[in-house]
Amino acid sequence: MTIKFCNQCGHEVKYLIPQGDDKPRAVCQSCYTIQYENPKVVNACIIEHKGKILLGKRTIEPRSGFWNIPAGFMENGESTRTGAIREVKEEVLADLKNITLFGVYNIIQRNQVHVYFRAELAHENFGAGAETSDAKLFAPEDIPWDQIAFPVGITALKRYIREMPSGEFSIKEEDIIIDYELLKQYDLKS
Amino acid sequence: MTIKFCNQCGHEVKYLIPQGDDKPRAVCQSCYTIQYENPKVVNACIIEHKGKILLGKRTIEPRSGFWNIPAGFMENGESTRTGAIREVKEEVLADLKNITLFGVYNIIQRNQVHVYFRAELAHENFGAGAETSDAKLFAPEDIPWDQIAFPVGITALKRYIREMPSGEFSIKEEDIIIDYELLKQYDLKS
Repeated sequence: MTIKFCNQCGHEVKYLIPQGDDKPRAVCQSCYTIQYENPKVVNACIIEHKGKILLGKRTIEPRSGFWNIPAGFMENGESTRTGAIREVKEEVLADLKNITLFGVYNIIQRNQVHVYFRAELAHENFGAGAETSDAKLFAPEDIPWDQIAFPVGITALKRYIREMPSGEFSIKEEDIIIDYELLKQYDLKS
Repeated sequence: MTIKFCNQCGHEVKYLIPQGDDKPRAVCQSCYTIQYENPKVVNACIIEHKGKILLGKRTIEPRSGFWNIPAGFMENGESTRTGAIREVKEEVLADLKNITLFGVYNIIQRNQVHVYFRAELAHENFGAGAETSDAKLFAPEDIPWDQIAFPVGITALKRYIREMPSGEFSIKEEDIIIDYELLKQYDLKS
């Protein structure tokens, strides 16, 4: 969303390159406050339980009705790890143990950085939570790949499953490329 | 900075918990746009050249005059990796090779996530760039620890140097705790 007004004084902004900067910013024409726009962090966690993966079915757009690795926007006042733990608790009502870093995925076209963790269920209680209609453990061979909500989830999950047999998980930083032509073809909104 | 006005229509906002949410957000009282506030990403890179580490001396607050690992806020349209490469080029005029993920550091008290990379100099040309008065290669034993700008840099650099002899670098996600009492004691601003 393009910024139109100053969130400090309510006057109009103009996109200008401030002195000492090299990018256009929303600069207030009255109080000269600059509103910066930066990428957002999404935290996510791949959850394993006895060789199966816990997924939640989304009830909100984008990709309502698709299965997803629990994930969500990081809030002020939390760490990437506590953010992932909170999202898991909210969406699939699960508690985790052995949570550890799994990957950093850049989605440049969305101005997002997804920080992925992996963990195990701390106990067998889980269920459909906020913005979720179903929560289910999938054996790797039963994962409905064409029903997974987002490319970043598919990329992360495929590596996880590839590395599962060895028990040796790598930690990778990768770019996720969104194929807009493919999205158009399937008439998808995201 | 607390948000006072809507950046879409210029009317006043109130901090309210929107329906289906559980945190107060800046909600416009006229058009009901919500302005979310989220943590920011800082990208950084530890640069090695023939067993020495390249640091830049800051000329801007906070911590002007202190040595720093090249780092800066991530911009829209870049990845964590290209962000780190850009900051290195801007601050110490250096080009990199073999850049790879090193760590994710949460600074909860600052609402920041620092994504650290490690790399080698692609060639021996470097120098003081933007917001930097000096750029210098330090042997591990010569690093002026009490002149390093930020705790996150000290934490990352100490692990790097610990792991250097083996050539086997780990990738860690860790929390950085800012000791406000210590900052007061030294009369530091950050």
